[in-house]
Amino acid sequence: MGTSEGWLIPTAKALRVTSTTRVGELDTNGTPGFEGGKSLGARLLEERGAVLSELQEKLFACARTTDEHRSVLLVLQGMDTAGKGGVVRHVIGHVDPQGVDHASFGVPTPEEKRHHYLWRVRRELPRKGQLGVFDRSHYEDVLVVRVHDLVPRTEWEARYDEINAFERDLVDSGTTLVKVAMFVSLDEQKARLAERLDRPDKYWKYNPGDVTERGFWPRYQEAYQAMLDRTSTEHAPWFVVPSDRKWYTRLAVTELLIDALERLELSWPPADFDVEAEKLRLARS
Amino acid sequence: MGTSEGWLIPTAKALRVTSTTRVGELDTNGTPGFEGGKSLGARLLEERGAVLSELQEKLFACARTTDEHRSVLLVLQGMDTAGKGGVVRHVIGHVDPQGVDHASFGVPTPEEKRHHYLWRVRRELPRKGQLGVFDRSHYEDVLVVRVHDLVPRTEWEARYDEINAFERDLVDSGTTLVKVAMFVSLDEQKARLAERLDRPDKYWKYNPGDVTERGFWPRYQEAYQAMLDRTSTEHAPWFVVPSDRKWYTRLAVTELLIDALERLELSWPPADFDVEAEKLRLARS
Repeated sequence: MGTSEGWLIPTAKALRVTSTTRVGELDTNGTPGFEGGKSLGARLLEERGAVLSELQEKLFACARTTDEHRSVLLVLQGMDTAGKGGVVRHVIGHVDPQGVDHASFGVPTPEEKRHHYLWRVRRELPRKGQLGVFDRSHYEDVLVVRVHDLVPRTEWEARYDEINAFERDLVDSGTTLVKVAMFVSLDEQKARLAERLDRPDKYWKYNPGDVTERGFWPRYQEAYQAMLDRTSTEHAPWFVVPSDRKWYTRLAVTELLIDALERLELSWPPADFDVEAEKLRLARS
Repeated sequence: MGTSEGWLIPTAKALRVTSTTRVGELDTNGTPGFEGGKSLGARLLEERGAVLSELQEKLFACARTTDEHRSVLLVLQGMDTAGKGGVVRHVIGHVDPQGVDHASFGVPTPEEKRHHYLWRVRRELPRKGQLGVFDRSHYEDVLVVRVHDLVPRTEWEARYDEINAFERDLVDSGTTLVKVAMFVSLDEQKARLAERLDRPDKYWKYNPGDVTERGFWPRYQEAYQAMLDRTSTEHAPWFVVPSDRKWYTRLAVTELLIDALERLELSWPPADFDVEAEKLRLARS
């Protein structure tokens, strides 16, 4: 875990949830650990995006040459307009599309509702060598479900432990989880929703239900707090990313992914053939 | 179908297969229809990549607001080192990852072998609103299969008509096919394979079988010729892209995709809510 240009401390250290993290007291406009501004952040996003891309290619290459399962799964959670889609486009967009397994989880379909809530999640887990991205995830089942009592309390209460066990299994089978909780302020959310109403090319992103959900803000904060308290584990910790400044969010997530990939200590796979002999064969072909 | 900067005629017109296309006589080093060089090509790739990205977002947006199925499927075929992976990274890499459904088709797995050859293809068709990418495809079943007699002749002979019917169904159900056949010269392929043997970070891309396949070059040319002759249809024509110059290949495929998307004449979906009323609701929230 190194400290990159512009960062006072490693990003993962600056953002990792602690026992004193309070959702209601977050500075959503802050840039924890980073000492630069938007222009440095934008430059670093490009540079570090290229580093991320190469690390992912190494993961992909290793998967082609061993039976071992290794993959990385980015889990994005946040209120509407927090910028999850922007992370997908501007962070994951640096990575070769063939190395990305992307899934988004909206309101469950009728078929999904007939199954256990983890059913649709298991189907979308990243294949080996892939960078998986969940735009929302199984955590919806302890967030919106809890806020609106979509199942009885005893049922969602049991899910925290169940999710921890599920993620423990994932980690044991070779998937590194990078769980990112993104937080915007009520005011910033209002500004972003207003933009969608001002631009006809953004209408499709607007949903009247988003305004309705604003009325449940305190209950969502409570649900997010419980999620962080109960599912940030040693094997799969949460990172809390202030998200009023899009450039910071994107740079921070890039660094978190780089950190996760560097910890795998990947090398380019050695040749499983005789290089010199192949050079001769090729020359003669 | 317009003519873009740098192009003397529309790309789709310059590259579309005709009854006189001869695989053995292609100038794989050529840049048909384009009057600029590498530096103009590189600049245009960025500019046109942004256009492609916005068109794909419009397709995605429309899919969110109608039940109509519309998608675009890029089919990439070409010998090893033709640059299929480079197209995925550098062309599709411009598009929002959430809008891309990527699949690659290698040697069939034991499970795939137990099914009809189109089975694995059907499973990977793009969802509505998505840009699908096939890195190799069902055409392997009339290329490598034909060259090596992996099934009896009567069986692969029947596949041309079957593929045409399959693609006819796809088009009828709203998928626009963009079929790209990429051709490198034997010499350029040798140079690209040699590079993989010179760079330890490329060993994983090298497969001794690729050299073996070079011995079958005339038979592959014959198989490609038959593929173009028999499966380039009005509803799903083939485009032949000379691929010795990577910058040209990538720019040409970008233009072909833009052309396909522009033909859909997409508009941003209108609001399905009362914009002014929502502005008020939001302001009060």
